[in-house]
Amino acid sequence: MINNFEDLYLDQLRDIYSAETQLIQALPEMISAASDEDLRAAFESHLEETRQQKQRLDQICSDHGISPAGETCEAMQGLIKEARKHLAEVQEPSLRDALLIASANRVEHYEIAAYGVARSFAESLGLSDEADMLGTSLDEESAAGERLTQLATGGLFNTGINAQAAR
Amino acid sequence: MINNFEDLYLDQLRDIYSAETQLIQALPEMISAASDEDLRAAFESHLEETRQQKQRLDQICSDHGISPAGETCEAMQGLIKEARKHLAEVQEPSLRDALLIASANRVEHYEIAAYGVARSFAESLGLSDEADMLGTSLDEESAAGERLTQLATGGLFNTGINAQAAR
Repeated sequence: MINNFEDLYLDQLRDIYSAETQLIQALPEMISAASDEDLRAAFESHLEETRQQKQRLDQICSDHGISPAGETCEAMQGLIKEARKHLAEVQEPSLRDALLIASANRVEHYEIAAYGVARSFAESLGLSDEADMLGTSLDEESAAGERLTQLATGGLFNTGINAQAAR
Repeated sequence: MINNFEDLYLDQLRDIYSAETQLIQALPEMISAASDEDLRAAFESHLEETRQQKQRLDQICSDHGISPAGETCEAMQGLIKEARKHLAEVQEPSLRDALLIASANRVEHYEIAAYGVARSFAESLGLSDEADMLGTSLDEESAAGERLTQLATGGLFNTGINAQAAR
């Protein structure tokens, strides 16, 4: 049972820890499935970031004297299951890349929401160091999401992966 | 099978249609579970918006001569399942409200990602009217997410639902 706001906060951290753990397992599949070199590089660099984000959660949980494990993030399970299902329906490389970005963007936004909530909980609990650590992860997720969008749309000149896939 | 970019776009629309359909079923539960009047009002107004968003998807799919149904959005299934699981662990009203916002924020961000992707696909396909319709839904999702964050944090004065729950 969750009896106070700190319990609720720690439960959120465990949820994100499970999400990051699942993502660390799924990202290598996404790297293998990607054709565009920049997209592969973006996934590779996000895998490294995700490992660091998981370590931050480990550290915060350790400071609270709890294990970060034991929770299963069912939302991330659904996100990954859906990504795999859609990918199995697409063969053409640029379409696969566009789909990988569509799926990865959903994952990034899940994490943006989750870190945003966890950071605001830390702030309400007066845990400013933890709020800062969670804010660092939040900023990384936002930047990763923007990088994916940039790869998809190609910015102002519309020369990105979507434009290639639409040809 | 998905053989071209239009197929991929329509598949994305069907995914969002399923997500919105599931959300229309889940929001009344969230309204019942909420104690804060402003939070209940936010969920109620988002339920009405969600119905309109679903109609927009209906219209776009109808213009393409396809049914919007037939897909199951497994990510939204996971999001709702997770929200229900966490809610069952929390009794105290202000903690429940903080948790409802944490869950709803994840849902909003899923939809922000999904509509952002679908709009950029519509743009790449030169479907500017559809891009505008999807952009309207995207703006509504962003505004709904911001309203929830405002309710949680209370803005500058930190007098929101999180602060009440942390007392």
